[in-house]
Amino acid sequence: MSKKVVIVGGVAGGASTAARLRRLDEQAEIIIFERDGYISFANCGLPYYVGETIVERENLILQTPEMMQNRFNIDARLHSEVVAVDGVQKKVTVKSADRGSYEETYDVLVLAPGAKPFIPPIAGVHSDKIYTLRNIPDADRIKAAVDQKRVHRAVVIGGGFIGVEMAENLCDRGIDVTLVEAAPHILMPFDDDMVTTAEKELEERGVRLILGDGVQGFAEQGAAETSEIEVALSSGTRLTAEMIILAIGVKPDVEFLKDSGLKFGPRGHLIVNEHMQTNIENIYAVGDAIQVIDFVNGSETAIPLAGPANKQGRIAADNICGIDSVFRGSQGTSIIKIFGLTGAVTGNNERTLRRLGIAYRVVHVHPNSHASYYPGASPIALKVIFDEKGKVLGAQAFGYDGVDKRIDVIATVIRMGGTVDDLKELELSYAPPYSSAKDPVNMAGFLAENLLASRTDLFVTSEIDQIDREKAVLLDVRSELEYETGHIPGSVLLPLEVLRQRLDELDPVKEYWVYCRVGFRGYLAERILKQRGFKAKNLSGGYSSYEIAQY
Amino acid sequence: MSKKVVIVGGVAGGASTAARLRRLDEQAEIIIFERDGYISFANCGLPYYVGETIVERENLILQTPEMMQNRFNIDARLHSEVVAVDGVQKKVTVKSADRGSYEETYDVLVLAPGAKPFIPPIAGVHSDKIYTLRNIPDADRIKAAVDQKRVHRAVVIGGGFIGVEMAENLCDRGIDVTLVEAAPHILMPFDDDMVTTAEKELEERGVRLILGDGVQGFAEQGAAETSEIEVALSSGTRLTAEMIILAIGVKPDVEFLKDSGLKFGPRGHLIVNEHMQTNIENIYAVGDAIQVIDFVNGSETAIPLAGPANKQGRIAADNICGIDSVFRGSQGTSIIKIFGLTGAVTGNNERTLRRLGIAYRVVHVHPNSHASYYPGASPIALKVIFDEKGKVLGAQAFGYDGVDKRIDVIATVIRMGGTVDDLKELELSYAPPYSSAKDPVNMAGFLAENLLASRTDLFVTSEIDQIDREKAVLLDVRSELEYETGHIPGSVLLPLEVLRQRLDELDPVKEYWVYCRVGFRGYLAERILKQRGFKAKNLSGGYSSYEIAQY
Ligand SMILES: Cc1cc2nc3c(=O)[nH]c(=O)nc-3n(C[C@H](O)[C@H](O)[C@H](O)COP(=O)(O)OP(=O)(O)OC[C@H]3O[C@@H](n4cnc5c(N)ncnc54)[C@H](O)[C@@H]3O)c2cc1C
Ligand SMILES: Cc1cc2nc3c(=O)[nH]c(=O)nc-3n(C[C@H](O)[C@H](O)[C@H](O)COP(=O)(O)OP(=O)(O)OC[C@H]3O[C@@H](n4cnc5c(N)ncnc54)[C@H](O)[C@@H]3O)c2cc1C
Ligand SMILES: CC(C)(COP(=O)(O)OP(=O)(O)OC[C@H]1O[C@@H](n2cnc3c(N)ncnc32)[C@H](O)[C@@H]1OP(=O)(O)O)[C@@H](O)C(=O)NCCC(=O)NCCS
Ligand SMILES: CC(C)(COP(=O)(O)OP(=O)(O)OC[C@H]1O[C@@H](n2cnc3c(N)ncnc32)[C@H](O)[C@@H]1OP(=O)(O)O)[C@@H](O)C(=O)NCCC(=O)NCCS
Repeated sequence: MSKKVVIVGGVAGGASTAARLRRLDEQAEIIIFERDGYISFANCGLPYYVGETIVERENLILQTPEMMQNRFNIDARLHSEVVAVDGVQKKVTVKSADRGSYEETYDVLVLAPGAKPFIPPIAGVHSDKIYTLRNIPDADRIKAAVDQKRVHRAVVIGGGFIGVEMAENLCDRGIDVTLVEAAPHILMPFDDDMVTTAEKELEERGVRLILGDGVQGFAEQGAAETSEIEVALSSGTRLTAEMIILAIGVKPDVEFLKDSGLKFGPRGHLIVNEHMQTNIENIYAVGDAIQVIDFVNGSETAIPLAGPANKQGRIAADNICGIDSVFRGSQGTSIIKIFGLTGAVTGNNERTLRRLGIAYRVVHVHPNSHASYYPGASPIALKVIFDEKGKVLGAQAFGYDGVDKRIDVIATVIRMGGTVDDLKELELSYAPPYSSAKDPVNMAGFLAENLLASRTDLFVTSEIDQIDREKAVLLDVRSELEYETGHIPGSVLLPLEVLRQRLDELDPVKEYWVYCRVGFRGYLAERILKQRGFKAKNLSGGYSSYEIAQY
Repeated sequence: MSKKVVIVGGVAGGASTAARLRRLDEQAEIIIFERDGYISFANCGLPYYVGETIVERENLILQTPEMMQNRFNIDARLHSEVVAVDGVQKKVTVKSADRGSYEETYDVLVLAPGAKPFIPPIAGVHSDKIYTLRNIPDADRIKAAVDQKRVHRAVVIGGGFIGVEMAENLCDRGIDVTLVEAAPHILMPFDDDMVTTAEKELEERGVRLILGDGVQGFAEQGAAETSEIEVALSSGTRLTAEMIILAIGVKPDVEFLKDSGLKFGPRGHLIVNEHMQTNIENIYAVGDAIQVIDFVNGSETAIPLAGPANKQGRIAADNICGIDSVFRGSQGTSIIKIFGLTGAVTGNNERTLRRLGIAYRVVHVHPNSHASYYPGASPIALKVIFDEKGKVLGAQAFGYDGVDKRIDVIATVIRMGGTVDDLKELELSYAPPYSSAKDPVNMAGFLAENLLASRTDLFVTSEIDQIDREKAVLLDVRSELEYETGHIPGSVLLPLEVLRQRLDELDPVKEYWVYCRVGFRGYLAERILKQRGFKAKNLSGGYSSYEIAQY
């Protein structure tokens, strides 16, 4: 007997479930309920549609209900909101634009309602000059306001991925953009010592950044058409604009499930097992609405990203059809374009590891995206985090080229449970336009190996303030020219090239905190000093990392 | 007591050994003997210097003897050829330009002499219009001839990586280039059903290709300055040019070792163990001159590439200093730029696996480099080879963007011993400018999983000729327009979108060989057909792969 599968939500998770289901079971009856007017659209493309990088609106729509019907024999019903789920009677209640309210029974139910923008309960937040961005109608509204030249100044609240993408895209449209972030830095998945690269790029491209300052309230001003809105910040700062983009995070879109008997996690996410099954039989859930296992540390988390949502949909379909597929958790691999810059991250950052009390080590390197002698090479700031046994826990990178590749390679190593020795050994493709004979990932592996073997000792920028100047000397081993162009206050110059000759100038009682531009010459100096009986350590990532962290 | 390490060859393997050695042992006496006038130069950049993509000659030189002295306290001696090795007395004989012939003792000897261009014993091969390319003087000679406008037509003999790079770079200089390859196809690491993409790109950019035709002899013609050289091919074809680039492969540069007692493999490579030790105590060898283990199939092979050479140098240094590092073999990851196109490969190809009698399965996919709705996406032709248990054995890709990333990710999975299930699960970075929610690597994993689970049966282009038209129907499930624009001869059109309605037109006795553009719709059709009781299989990679293989 053919089964009837009802799916709530018709985009990343829902549509993926449906498509895979049909391939596995030609007989099943498959119904998708979608509250909005579109299924299967490119959420991730919306900021670029506003920014007019994506020009054709229709390109945002991957599948229409007609295509779903013809290709997949799937009944996708638009403007059909599921308002209640009855897991005992196995039916859902649907509020439909054209058919009114009705019930639909199911053999299997799949919940893929996603997450919606979080709207804080603060004064004036319901103004029509305040926009959120989740779906095509949202993008249409924002774009219309921009197209009609009603917006000269915009304030983006929230420095997450969507906030930063919107800041860039509004800026691309010639709008004067201010981005406000309550935390000390934007883009939470990155650590403070890396993310300043992104902040610098934004500011250099004309986006004004206000960090560490929260929104207290909004107040509309002026007459209807030309009117402005004022944002009041905790610090007392007031900003005026014609448009506010509110992008301070998302929360599971699951209110309609509150009486369903389904179990939720501490932050309101649906709880599922590795087969995507909820606590109620025959009810599966996938996507932004669920809680997942952090692949690296095993804790419970939520990772609202399209890759996991799509994969979970496929896994749910497998299990519905008796195929034993499992979801082994998310590692939070993500990436963002910030004008010309790319930032990418995978696994855990220092903040997460500290919070969980997991011990870790860190290396910073700045190798070129490809062979330095081939035109167009640019440095990648790459940070790799690993445990005492060398197991890779996370990585972060910023740069203008080749960042996605390196983070994807490290994401792969993490997924396979690999160590820094694996990073070191990886045989990656090399010709001058693409990489170096020792790829940046190999380089990070070498350095990590040296650290774990105590061949090098590293210090990081934040430790510089704690140097006891009585006992330690901050030694710059770059050239005189580099030193004069800029150096860490209090440092003494002794270029690597003359270090061996001038060792007698050094005091064997003191500890030498060495640095160079990226860490390579510092490491050479450290090795010389140590083997000549001095105490020495090297600045991880060198002056480059220092400058990033200081920004 | 400090040890004395003598290194023969001062480039990739030799210089890497020396540098790591110094970091590990500040006391060691380190001498590099280099026959030529340069150490530590960018071999891989030479074609691009000829082509003037790399403009500054000095950029090709990474380290000079002076820099080696100042930074590493290493004594690098140029124009110093080691002509004999005495492993019993532990000394080498050196023929030096300035010091004449002398002996140098060692505690440890590292051999990194590399490989030299193979010069076939055919008539006229010693003409000064025939060039090979290994080092800076070679590049200088070729570039001088081009700069002086003495070259209007060039014939490149050999379609390996260096031959193809030279064809491109000479073409970039406005020279009329013909490339001759004796095998049926260029770029051996790729299989025949993939490499035609590269051949097409070369021809479209104006390089004339002559495949499956060998050189029989050369004959100089005309007066000295304006003179030409004629190439006679086995087929009878004769080509005339002012320059011949001979690039038919390399062989270990080890003649000076013939009386050393060192052991060589069947093709003349030095045999070493995983610590890079030769059969003679205290003699190590690294780089192009050695035989290595094929990481995928465990057989003996030689992989003359810079990445392995550099890593082997580091491993040799480690072992010399008592650190137990091992080289676990090469998987032959390599990459080439062919004008705008990129081709990359890792692991074993079908040819190798067939030769070794290893059973394998193959999938072809053509996903876009990034989200299709974001500008600039272009398809990647990706082929993945794996065994019956799903273990990934190799991959090949061609495309205009993102090829290096996908091959590096798969190279990582191979290195970690992973399967197609791992490809499927990998959590790679996704935002529209960089990838799709299901990365091309994931896609290949999905398809491979389906194949192994017999959810899909695939056929490849080369099987089409064997179809028994009595028993089987070649079914094109694309649109009418696509069919009319071009289809496989003898195929019948039945678009996917109307397949379910028109199933009664099909004959349940026949087997349906389905195809579409890339394989996706064909797969959907196959799934429908199979579940409705028909026998069906799908063309791997669809019409796109067919067109590539037919080229
Ligand atoms: C602007 C933007 C940019 C993004 N960029 C990226 C990116 O670059 N990379 C990345 O990995 N991820 C990105 N994401 C996140 C990604 O889009 C989501 O992770 C993914 O879409 C989640 O899939 P889902 O199926 O869980 O939810 P959704 O795709 O949100 O789909 C849920 C659907 O369910 C419908 N629905 C909800 N409740 C009901 C109900 N009761 N009845 C009927 N229908 C209902 C909703 O209308 C919605 O259409 C972005 C998201 C946004 C908004
Ligand atoms: C044109 C070209 C392009 C290339 N492109 C790439 C690429 O894109 N990617 C890639 O991975 N690889 C590439 N390679 C291959 C790469 O350069 C080699 O794999 C690598 O250099 C091998 O290192 P090696 O140390 O073994 O030998 P080499 O780098 O060749 O160094 C050996 C040195 O030893 C010296 N020598 C030899 N015999 C003696 C002796 N008896 N006494 C003293 N000195 C001696 C030689 O003069 C030579 O300088 C390319 C090679 C060439 C020639
Ligand atoms: C498009 C969508 C409906 C999924 O549809 P889908 O049919 O699974 O299509 P995909 O393009 O993902 O293709 C994957 C399938 O095609 C198969 N496939 C891909 N290329 C193939 C080829 N060349 N040959 C054979 N099969 C192929 C894969 O194996 C897989 O099938 P499987 O799951 O049965 O193994 C759904 O992902 C969606 O709605 N996406 C838009 C929303 C979204 O994701 N938003 C967030 C990102 S912007
Ligand atoms: C350049 C060459 C001399 C090698 O020198 P090297 O000193 O090993 O330098 P690399 O740039 O490879 O750097 C690697 C070292 O720096 C360390 N390092 C790199 N970045 C670092 C950083 N930011 N902080 C600390 N250490 C760093 C690595 O750990 C590694 O040291 P280790 O081997 O002791 O672990 C040698 O590779 C060479 O001659 N190359 C040119 C020839 C060639 O390779 N040709 C073929 C390709 S064109």
